[in-house]
Amino acid sequence: MPVNPPQFPAIPPFGGIRMGAVDANIRGYGRPDLALVTLPSGSTGVALFTQSAFRAAPVIVAAEQLAAARPRALIVNAGNANAATGNPGVEDAREVCRAVAAAIGAEPASILPYSTGVIGELLPVQRMVDALPALIEQLEEDHWAAFARAIMTTDTVPKGAIATVELAGAEVTIAGVAKGSGMIEPHMATMLGYVFTDAMVDTELLDEVLRTAVARSFNRITVDSDTSTNDSVTLIATGTSGASMLSKADRDAFLAGLIDVMRTLAHAIVRDGEGATKFVEVAVGGASDSAEALKVAYAIANSPLVKTALAASDANWGRIVMAIGKAGVEGLRQETVSLRLGDTLLLESGCVSPDYEEARGAAEFAKDEIVIRVDLGRGKVSESVWTSDLTHEYVSINADYRS
Amino acid sequence: MPVNPPQFPAIPPFGGIRMGAVDANIRGYGRPDLALVTLPSGSTGVALFTQSAFRAAPVIVAAEQLAAARPRALIVNAGNANAATGNPGVEDAREVCRAVAAAIGAEPASILPYSTGVIGELLPVQRMVDALPALIEQLEEDHWAAFARAIMTTDTVPKGAIATVELAGAEVTIAGVAKGSGMIEPHMATMLGYVFTDAMVDTELLDEVLRTAVARSFNRITVDSDTSTNDSVTLIATGTSGASMLSKADRDAFLAGLIDVMRTLAHAIVRDGEGATKFVEVAVGGASDSAEALKVAYAIANSPLVKTALAASDANWGRIVMAIGKAGVEGLRQETVSLRLGDTLLLESGCVSPDYEEARGAAEFAKDEIVIRVDLGRGKVSESVWTSDLTHEYVSINADYRS
Repeated sequence: MPVNPPQFPAIPPFGGIRMGAVDANIRGYGRPDLALVTLPSGSTGVALFTQSAFRAAPVIVAAEQLAAARPRALIVNAGNANAATGNPGVEDAREVCRAVAAAIGAEPASILPYSTGVIGELLPVQRMVDALPALIEQLEEDHWAAFARAIMTTDTVPKGAIATVELAGAEVTIAGVAKGSGMIEPHMATMLGYVFTDAMVDTELLDEVLRTAVARSFNRITVDSDTSTNDSVTLIATGTSGASMLSKADRDAFLAGLIDVMRTLAHAIVRDGEGATKFVEVAVGGASDSAEALKVAYAIANSPLVKTALAASDANWGRIVMAIGKAGVEGLRQETVSLRLGDTLLLESGCVSPDYEEARGAAEFAKDEIVIRVDLGRGKVSESVWTSDLTHEYVSINADYRS
Repeated sequence: MPVNPPQFPAIPPFGGIRMGAVDANIRGYGRPDLALVTLPSGSTGVALFTQSAFRAAPVIVAAEQLAAARPRALIVNAGNANAATGNPGVEDAREVCRAVAAAIGAEPASILPYSTGVIGELLPVQRMVDALPALIEQLEEDHWAAFARAIMTTDTVPKGAIATVELAGAEVTIAGVAKGSGMIEPHMATMLGYVFTDAMVDTELLDEVLRTAVARSFNRITVDSDTSTNDSVTLIATGTSGASMLSKADRDAFLAGLIDVMRTLAHAIVRDGEGATKFVEVAVGGASDSAEALKVAYAIANSPLVKTALAASDANWGRIVMAIGKAGVEGLRQETVSLRLGDTLLLESGCVSPDYEEARGAAEFAKDEIVIRVDLGRGKVSESVWTSDLTHEYVSINADYRS
C-alpha cells in the first residue's frame, strides 16, 4: 500500500491534448499497456533523459526526434523497456513511430516513443502496430487516468497532478502524469513523466524551466538507488491558451506551478515506492555546497540499514550516523554534526544528546511521514531528498515477479 | 544460513599469542562478548581503519596507540560500537586500555581497543573492567574459536583462516579471525579482522604487505554498501619464529600466504552476509583502469534490484545491464559491452545475444555460487568484487533486531 498517496486529480480538457490507452498484450498484464497522446500542431516540446550509459532504444529515438521536429504525438508502452536491444531495438522504436505517424497523418519525426518494463527483450512491434486503430478510437481529451494507468508497471496507483497559474491575467493549466515505483534514483530525469501546459512557450525557455523544475523534483528522489535505462521527463506546451510569459513575475508564477506539479508527481512515485510503508524527507543543512549536502542526503536515503530500521520503526539512529560518516565529505568533522528526527534532537556536536530518550526516538520512527534533519555545521547550503523504506514487500516485489 | 562457509580451521599454538573470551554482559547476548589477545614483547603491529568521517572512539584510540608503542594486547568487545559517543567515548576506550594494561603489567599505550555493535550508546566500562580477571584466566594459546565467536554480532558462524609459508627455509604461520555480516562495504578495512604471524617483520614492511593484501581481500567485498564506523584490520608479527623476509621470493611467498588468509576471511564474511543465500563474484574486465572496473563491479554488487533477482534465482539479467549503465563510466559505449553469467553469454556488443535461451540463464541464476562476468571492451584491466544477495532474511535481521 502506498504511503498517503494523493488522489488522482480531476484534469479537465485543456490545450487540445487527446489521449487513450488499450491492451496491446505487450506482456500479458491483462490491462491497457499502450498509450497514445496527440498534440495540436505548433506545440513545443523538450525532455530530459536518463544519464545511463545503456540508454534504451526509445530514449535514443525520442531525443533524435525532438531535435528534428515539433512533437505531434507520444506513444508509450509498459511491459517491455526496449533496452539492451542494440540496433534492432532502435529500428523497432522507429517502426512504431512510422506506424503512428501514418495512422494520425503526421511526420514520423514528430512522434516520440517511450517504453518501460523488462530490459533485454525485443519489442513486440507487430502487436503494437495492430493495436493502433483501436487506440486511436480511444482518444479523448479527458482520458488522463487511463493514460496514467496504462504506463504503470509495479506501480500500485496512477499518478497525476495539476496546477493553474496566471500569466499576465490569463489562466493557464499545467498538468501531467508519471509512473515509477522501483529502479528509482533518477539523474536528470525519472522513470516516465509527462507534463503538459496550454501556455505558449518557446523551446529554449521551455528547456530552461524544465531543467530547473526537475532539479527540484524528480532529481531529488530515490527508492532503491537504481537508475533506469529509460528515465524520461517530457514537457509539452501546446500554446493554445495564447498566454505566454512576458514578465519575470509570469516566469516565476509558471515555474512555481511547474515545480508544484512535478514535485507532486515525484513524491507520488516515492509514496508508491516498491513496498514502501514510510515517506521520508532527508533534509541536510549547514553544508558548504549543494554537492556535499546531496552526498550526505543520498547516503542516508539509500542506506539499506537506515531503510530497514525505518521499516521496523526501530529508533536505531546510529545507522544514520554511519551513513553520514560514509558519505565521503572531505574533511567532515564529527564534532560539528547534529541530527534531529522531526523535532527530536539525537546527536549534538557529534555525540549522543544527553537529553535524548529512546521513547521519543521511537515515537518519531513510528510515524509514516518522517523528516530526518542533519546539520553538518560547515556552511549555509541545504538540500532535501525524498525516499521510502526497505521492507519485506520490496524484496517480494522484486524477487517474485519480473516487472 | 551462510553460503558454503569454510569450516573454522584448526589453528595450533604459534607465536606466543594467547587469547580468551568471557561474557561481560555488554548487551545481554548471554554468550562471551569480550575477548583479549596478548602478544609477546617485541611484536610489531599495523592496522587499517575505516574511512568513515564518524570514526568510532576505539578506532581513534587504537590508531593513536599503534603510533605510540609496540602492541602487547588487543581488547575487543561486541554489542556496543562506542561510536557517536564524542569525547566521553574516547575517554571510555582509554579507561578500558588502562585497566587491561594494569592487569597484564604493560604500558597503556600498548593496548589496542576495538568495539563492534550498536552505534550511539556509551560503553559499559565498569562491566568490562570487572570482567578482566576472569578474562585473563581464560587466556590460552589455542582459544582461537572462542576469540572468533566472542566478537560476532549478527554473524552466524565464527570465521578463521590459516596458511603456512616458507621464508628462507623456515616455516612461518599466518592465521587470523574476522567478524562481519552486515554494514559491509569496507574502504581500506573491514568490520574487524585480526591476522597474526610469527614471522619477524618490521613495521614498515608489515604496513606495506597489509595494504597490498587488504586491497585484494577485505577491500573487495560488499554485503549492503554500508561502511562501518568501526572497520579495522590489524596485522601483528610476533617475530618468535626468528624467520624474516630476506629475498623477493620470501616476500612474494609471505604476501601470497597473507592474501590467502585475508581473502578466506573476507569471503567468509560475504558467505555469512546477512540473509545471504548466494555467494557472487562480479568480475569486470576490459576496463581502461582499475577505478572504472571497480565502479561497474560495485554498481552491480550493490544494486538492490540485481541482488533481489539473485535471491529469487530469476534470470532478470536486464537489471545487471541497468547497473552497468548507471555506474557513471565516462564515455562508456554500450556497443562494446558484453555480459556472461558463468559461461552463458547474455549480452554481446550491447545487444541481447541471439543464442541466449532463458532456460540457460535460469540454470545459472539457480546456483548458489555465481560469477557475473562483464567485459567493457575498453582496455585490459580486470577487477573482481564479491557480494551476496538481498533476501527477506536480510530485511528481517535488520528490521526485527537491533544488532
